[in-house]
Amino acid sequence: MRYLIKFSYDGTAYSGFQIQKGLDTIQERMELALTKINNGKYTSITATGRTDKGVHALCQYGHADIDVEINEKKLKRALNSNLPDDIHVIETKIVANDFHARYGVKSKTYRYIINVGEYNPLERNHVFQYNYKLDSNSMRNALEYFKGTHDFRAFVTDNKEKENCIRTIEEVSLEEYNDKIIITFTGDGFLRYQVRNMVGILIKVGENKLNYREISNIIASRDRTKAGKTAPAEGLYLIDVKY
Amino acid sequence: MRYLIKFSYDGTAYSGFQIQKGLDTIQERMELALTKINNGKYTSITATGRTDKGVHALCQYGHADIDVEINEKKLKRALNSNLPDDIHVIETKIVANDFHARYGVKSKTYRYIINVGEYNPLERNHVFQYNYKLDSNSMRNALEYFKGTHDFRAFVTDNKEKENCIRTIEEVSLEEYNDKIIITFTGDGFLRYQVRNMVGILIKVGENKLNYREISNIIASRDRTKAGKTAPAEGLYLIDVKY
Repeated sequence: MRYLIKFSYDGTAYSGFQIQKGLDTIQERMELALTKINNGKYTSITATGRTDKGVHALCQYGHADIDVEINEKKLKRALNSNLPDDIHVIETKIVANDFHARYGVKSKTYRYIINVGEYNPLERNHVFQYNYKLDSNSMRNALEYFKGTHDFRAFVTDNKEKENCIRTIEEVSLEEYNDKIIITFTGDGFLRYQVRNMVGILIKVGENKLNYREISNIIASRDRTKAGKTAPAEGLYLIDVKY
Repeated sequence: MRYLIKFSYDGTAYSGFQIQKGLDTIQERMELALTKINNGKYTSITATGRTDKGVHALCQYGHADIDVEINEKKLKRALNSNLPDDIHVIETKIVANDFHARYGVKSKTYRYIINVGEYNPLERNHVFQYNYKLDSNSMRNALEYFKGTHDFRAFVTDNKEKENCIRTIEEVSLEEYNDKIIITFTGDGFLRYQVRNMVGILIKVGENKLNYREISNIIASRDRTKAGKTAPAEGLYLIDVKY
């Protein structure tokens, strides 16, 4: 039986989602729990995509095939009792055997949170502690340029030469709340470090070191060296996935 | 010169504020940083009061006497560069030599946060993960009984027989926001575990295991055994202190 598993995690302690030998990863923790429930038979999970080291998820999905008969609620409970307290299964659902957690994705939403106020030790792993003022109006203007279908090559780290970097960003928003700048992107898919690289350039705009109108030139350049720094992992959350 | 230091901390990793031999405490971390800045001369800090193991502070104060000449901004910077990233100095201020960070306190405000929605791994150390519905209207009714001047003996853990347990709670509030119940108490002082014990009984009311009208009888009983469980540390924050 194929199950779709909705889960969340605090990425702080992990070397990202994807299994890597000798490193503690969210995928490995999920597969250990699944394998235990599946009577010791190695059980893989296929997620919507990887998240990088230190990145969080409030809503991530993966599918897994389990042989033992177990209902959806019991599977949730069994997984949670076999997972560490920084990974949590929210829901499980029986799906068709050809359902695919990655190929089936229609859109993903990522959120990035920046603290422009005083350093907050309680948020140090969950919000980028920038701790200086930023020009949020310019950032909002810059953000609009990312909307639509573009070749995002200038915002991709570790790009393989021939990879298709054309993606569509359907919605963007920038909200301010209690010394936080909250930037949200919804799109059909995101490339490696794309969100953190887009936020990196938005911060440069917010510092008034770059005019927001330059964003369209940087996108058009398709040149990673033009687009500046990668914003740190701790501010980034996968918050929604639509099938 | 006497300095008043405003600071915040994530209590998760510490055995509380107060120095205890062989344990990692916030006081010890602060004193190590102060002593280093004071050219190695042991420098103590006197805080508004202790917070227990796992309890957080967004606004804690302490005073310390430093011999070396250092201005307020430089002292802030020097302390922060000698503190771990889960303790943060927000501000320092030169005060009169007879200013006392504990005796001078007019009121303190504590906040307790309960998650009544789905378990959230990102908040596991910063919000009590109760994860079930609670009857917040009954809790709000119960909360009102704590207002005013009472002998809070029934809500004090490890009470020394002769300790004066009469305190005044000036303000209380219960707000609901995104599956969180946020309870705030402002008073002239709080006894050991008092806030967590008051929240413990409020949860019992919220579970409809106790009628809210019983609170006044429990206060009057002055009997710790009547007042039920202590709510866990991770939901509690010292959020304000007034001089």
